[in-house]
Amino acid sequence: MNKEMSETLTRVGPGTHMGNLMRRYWVPALQSNEIAEPDGPQVRVQLLGEKLLAFRDSDGKARLIDEFCSHRGVSLYFGRNEENGIRCAYHGVKFDGDGKCVDVPSSPQACARMHIKAYPCIERGGIVWTYMGPADKQPAPPELEWCTLPADHVFVSKRLQYSNYLQAMEGGIDTAHVSYVHSFEVDSDPMHQGVKALDYIKADGNVMFEIEKTPFGLSLFGRRNGEPDSYYWRVTQWLFPWFTLIAPFGEHALGGHVWVPIDDHSCWAWSINWQPSRPLSAAERSAMEAGKGIHVEYEAPGSFIPRANRDNDYMMDRVAQKEKRSYSGIFGFAAQDYSLQESMGTIQNHEAEQLLPTDKAIVMARRMLHEAALGLEEGQNPPALDASQQRVRPAGVLLPKEQDPVEWARVNLADSISKPVFSL
Amino acid sequence: MNKEMSETLTRVGPGTHMGNLMRRYWVPALQSNEIAEPDGPQVRVQLLGEKLLAFRDSDGKARLIDEFCSHRGVSLYFGRNEENGIRCAYHGVKFDGDGKCVDVPSSPQACARMHIKAYPCIERGGIVWTYMGPADKQPAPPELEWCTLPADHVFVSKRLQYSNYLQAMEGGIDTAHVSYVHSFEVDSDPMHQGVKALDYIKADGNVMFEIEKTPFGLSLFGRRNGEPDSYYWRVTQWLFPWFTLIAPFGEHALGGHVWVPIDDHSCWAWSINWQPSRPLSAAERSAMEAGKGIHVEYEAPGSFIPRANRDNDYMMDRVAQKEKRSYSGIFGFAAQDYSLQESMGTIQNHEAEQLLPTDKAIVMARRMLHEAALGLEEGQNPPALDASQQRVRPAGVLLPKEQDPVEWARVNLADSISKPVFSL
Amino acid sequence: MNKEMSETLTRVGPGTHMGNLMRRYWVPALQSNEIAEPDGPQVRVQLLGEKLLAFRDSDGKARLIDEFCSHRGVSLYFGRNEENGIRCAYHGVKFDGDGKCVDVPSSPQACARMHIKAYPCIERGGIVWTYMGPADKQPAPPELEWCTLPADHVFVSKRLQYSNYLQAMEGGIDTAHVSYVHSFEVDSDPMHQGVKALDYIKADGNVMFEIEKTPFGLSLFGRRNGEPDSYYWRVTQWLFPWFTLIAPFGEHALGGHVWVPIDDHSCWAWSINWQPSRPLSAAERSAMEAGKGIHVEYEAPGSFIPRANRDNDYMMDRVAQKEKRSYSGIFGFAAQDYSLQESMGTIQNHEAEQLLPTDKAIVMARRMLHEAALGLEEGQNPPALDASQQRVRPAGVLLPKEQDPVEWARVNLADSISKPVFSL
Repeated sequence: MNKEMSETLTRVGPGTHMGNLMRRYWVPALQSNEIAEPDGPQVRVQLLGEKLLAFRDSDGKARLIDEFCSHRGVSLYFGRNEENGIRCAYHGVKFDGDGKCVDVPSSPQACARMHIKAYPCIERGGIVWTYMGPADKQPAPPELEWCTLPADHVFVSKRLQYSNYLQAMEGGIDTAHVSYVHSFEVDSDPMHQGVKALDYIKADGNVMFEIEKTPFGLSLFGRRNGEPDSYYWRVTQWLFPWFTLIAPFGEHALGGHVWVPIDDHSCWAWSINWQPSRPLSAAERSAMEAGKGIHVEYEAPGSFIPRANRDNDYMMDRVAQKEKRSYSGIFGFAAQDYSLQESMGTIQNHEAEQLLPTDKAIVMARRMLHEAALGLEEGQNPPALDASQQRVRPAGVLLPKEQDPVEWARVNLADSISKPVFSL
Repeated sequence: MNKEMSETLTRVGPGTHMGNLMRRYWVPALQSNEIAEPDGPQVRVQLLGEKLLAFRDSDGKARLIDEFCSHRGVSLYFGRNEENGIRCAYHGVKFDGDGKCVDVPSSPQACARMHIKAYPCIERGGIVWTYMGPADKQPAPPELEWCTLPADHVFVSKRLQYSNYLQAMEGGIDTAHVSYVHSFEVDSDPMHQGVKALDYIKADGNVMFEIEKTPFGLSLFGRRNGEPDSYYWRVTQWLFPWFTLIAPFGEHALGGHVWVPIDDHSCWAWSINWQPSRPLSAAERSAMEAGKGIHVEYEAPGSFIPRANRDNDYMMDRVAQKEKRSYSGIFGFAAQDYSLQESMGTIQNHEAEQLLPTDKAIVMARRMLHEAALGLEEGQNPPALDASQQRVRPAGVLLPKEQDPVEWARVNLADSISKPVFSL
Repeated sequence: MNKEMSETLTRVGPGTHMGNLMRRYWVPALQSNEIAEPDGPQVRVQLLGEKLLAFRDSDGKARLIDEFCSHRGVSLYFGRNEENGIRCAYHGVKFDGDGKCVDVPSSPQACARMHIKAYPCIERGGIVWTYMGPADKQPAPPELEWCTLPADHVFVSKRLQYSNYLQAMEGGIDTAHVSYVHSFEVDSDPMHQGVKALDYIKADGNVMFEIEKTPFGLSLFGRRNGEPDSYYWRVTQWLFPWFTLIAPFGEHALGGHVWVPIDDHSCWAWSINWQPSRPLSAAERSAMEAGKGIHVEYEAPGSFIPRANRDNDYMMDRVAQKEKRSYSGIFGFAAQDYSLQESMGTIQNHEAEQLLPTDKAIVMARRMLHEAALGLEEGQNPPALDASQQRVRPAGVLLPKEQDPVEWARVNLADSISKPVFSL
């Protein structure tokens, strides 16, 4: 990846190629429960390099406006959230959730010429989503399965990652790394006991990959030997511009991530679990709340900074590493990934990479993002704006050796909501 | 305010327009009691971007010299303050309070060619003031009322503010903001109980302003309805280049501030209270020492960093904000201001401002500073070098409706020391 | 020293003049006991601006390779040190101690084209040394006395200094400062009681210096009055490019330092004590371990950050300074020096210096380094690559007044190992 392509893919601020592209999709902004109450405390939110303020208005609607008052530039974080708007603490200037100035107590006539940035919001899957692009280009709301289920079927968390979104997201696309950094974690996880698929994975370390370019992004197919007459296939997806899905095991909840730039040097790693056909059990939910599986324990409640982080070397345990209880000495699927991704530097030196055949899906995703970003400048529409394409599901399945998994996935995984889950 | 003007006003290092202007006035450098004892510990002081060292010499005189030895550049903070000079700890090179080298133990003949920067100092009002400009341009000492009173009439404190001096000082000029961020604080302050003026203020939220350009800077007149045949006027002043005065309430001490740049991104906010005609009472002084009124509690003794600061979100209390015990959720007049001023960024983006009619005094002060700074380059004298102009006092007064407050102020507030205080 | 010369001497990264020169010598990289065990935990090491990883391989050999995997740029610090190599935690790519890729599990054929930087290592005097220059220019191993003695004769420690190596090393060359910042420390050190030489030093404050340019660098001769017919000479050395030796007192261990750039703004200060003819006593070793003499106490075990550091103003005690128990208020020979050297800024402003006659040795060392660095560009060989020249020893000696100390030193201190120690 040359310097031009690296910069195109990693720079996301206003007016950048990738920033323009991302602003054509709905952006996960914050958890709905961070602004739980109408007229409750507002919250600072930074997205794609823009400093914003989220609040729930008197009508209960989630709102996202510029963090700063247009009068003197004071943060509205210190303002008063009341009567469907935020009133700046300095001089009482008030803006509603559309960024419209609705009161200038000292100079009512000045109201008309004052306004601040505001982005429309919707709520899906426990997340407040916003749209930061041109008003006339707003797409339909996301239809990812976890956005369409009752709230008690879904668990959502987020954590701060100190790296560019791209190298974080590539960990979600890259299924090859599971056999290394996660290997002892997979073995020791009590949730994995008795899962049939893990026998196939252990028995055949030589996974073969197929990749399909799709309208929504990429489908990845990992093949291992299954029963004598079958292969065990794991099917996962990357969806434009930042969604990844994880193939399930046994009765486990399905899983996925969203990788959303805060700025060029940090991102939100969203982690979602869901059960398509039933509420999460109390045991499932409490494990997720405790940071198990793809979720993390936090340094402090509400900080969204993981307890294992760069300041404490990710709580690395060299003894556990030596004793093969952890491959890298770090515990937890998420920490195992972000420790490595952050160690690359906040923006990886892409020019120095020496890529391998197993990086093929990453290379394809980079090219597709690059083409889409440059194409947008030339007037082309961004890919995957049709939300119905997001109704796709990951799977683990045994197929007869002669069966084409790509064909199979087209029939069984596209528009998969309400269809049976494939999981071993 | 365009970029040129913003940079002219906010850059204060050696050789800058505003830096040159400010160096023509006496600069509050540190509290006299920070260097309490002759030959006691020296103190690092940064002013207008210059790193300096203050000490009290063997004769008891306050001194201000370059922080660094001219030999190898070592900080004289680690040197020995003894026998009317500071001896560098590295090689014993010694400088006196005029920056003259008085000893090079290893090479006495080298003394003559070594010297360091030194600025003359005076002490007034519990503050060591210094003059950092051309030697032949040194003005007369300040004659602000609090500089001329016996020590027991005056209380002085300082605090570190993480912003450019300009946006800090503008909070001192801007009387319009009092009705917002300070409103519930004003109501609940026990010192404010029974103060007549507060009834006028509460009864008439629609304050009208007049502004007078004066030789010392600006006089501001805020008008509210008083008794049936009178207006209640609050008169405050801004004095070149960084002084602001606060109109008094009842028997309260008078108040004022000085806003002194440390560098372009931080400043000292000096806060002063004084009683013209009597010593401060023990109750007044102990409240001030406890950080009440315009003063603050410190993070640690001697740190001059407020306890409520940007690292702890100014100890914001969202419940108190919701319950209208604090407008912004922050407590204390000072913290209510500097929290907002620091939230603008260390140098406010002036180009994005949308100013209001109530900002008129700020606009005038900016223009006057800008003109004075540019005028200095063209050989004009800085304004307000005549210290007798500083003998002005703020006031709160009921005047018959037909009386011109500007006329009244010229007679009653200029050279006001020894005249009666006007306060309701 | 002009700007060109200052930058030439202080910039040490790859491709810089001084960086190229230093890469022609063996570089102290880390303590041997930091990688105590074969296949034990690897350690991050930064030298001359390069981020590296040290490990002890399965055969017990110390190794130094690039910190980052060439595949995706992940830090090998998180990898597995096993079977003579480090395996990256992300995808299992493995490199041996020569930087050769020995395994790419997913793509064995990719191995041949992958490799990372590796530098040869040797161990001498409890230190892992590395050579970072052109392979065909590798010099013979160091022959400093403390590198050639049995391990129980030597004690080695290191500490992090927050300054460029040059101003740190110049403190090691500069014997003139001992009479100032260290003066009360020298007096009060119980190890100094009964040492004859200290009587001469106290009796004659007017030390005279002679300096000899030698093939290895510089010999410094400090003369004080001794007995009626003799002078007391202290002979110390600076050896290319970063070694300094300390003249001994009485039965004390000999001492020396190495000043090794981490990057342009920080360095490792190595401190070494040794007894040529006997093991260190238990008392000597435990005092050194406790941070006495030229060593330091650490902030935390294994941190190599001194307990007295810039964050705590070096634990300065103004009372002790006033009472002449410490000249600068700081305790410990090392802290007394690095507090001053760090106060210069991480790179001293050399252009503002006003040098004194006592700085002559520093000026000569700077010129010799500058000439050597520029000469290297023009094809000249670096000085002092002949390791046998390092077999020189510092001394304290009484010589008849008419005896030439330079002659004496050539006979008695060059190739001095196995010769008697001269110490009073």
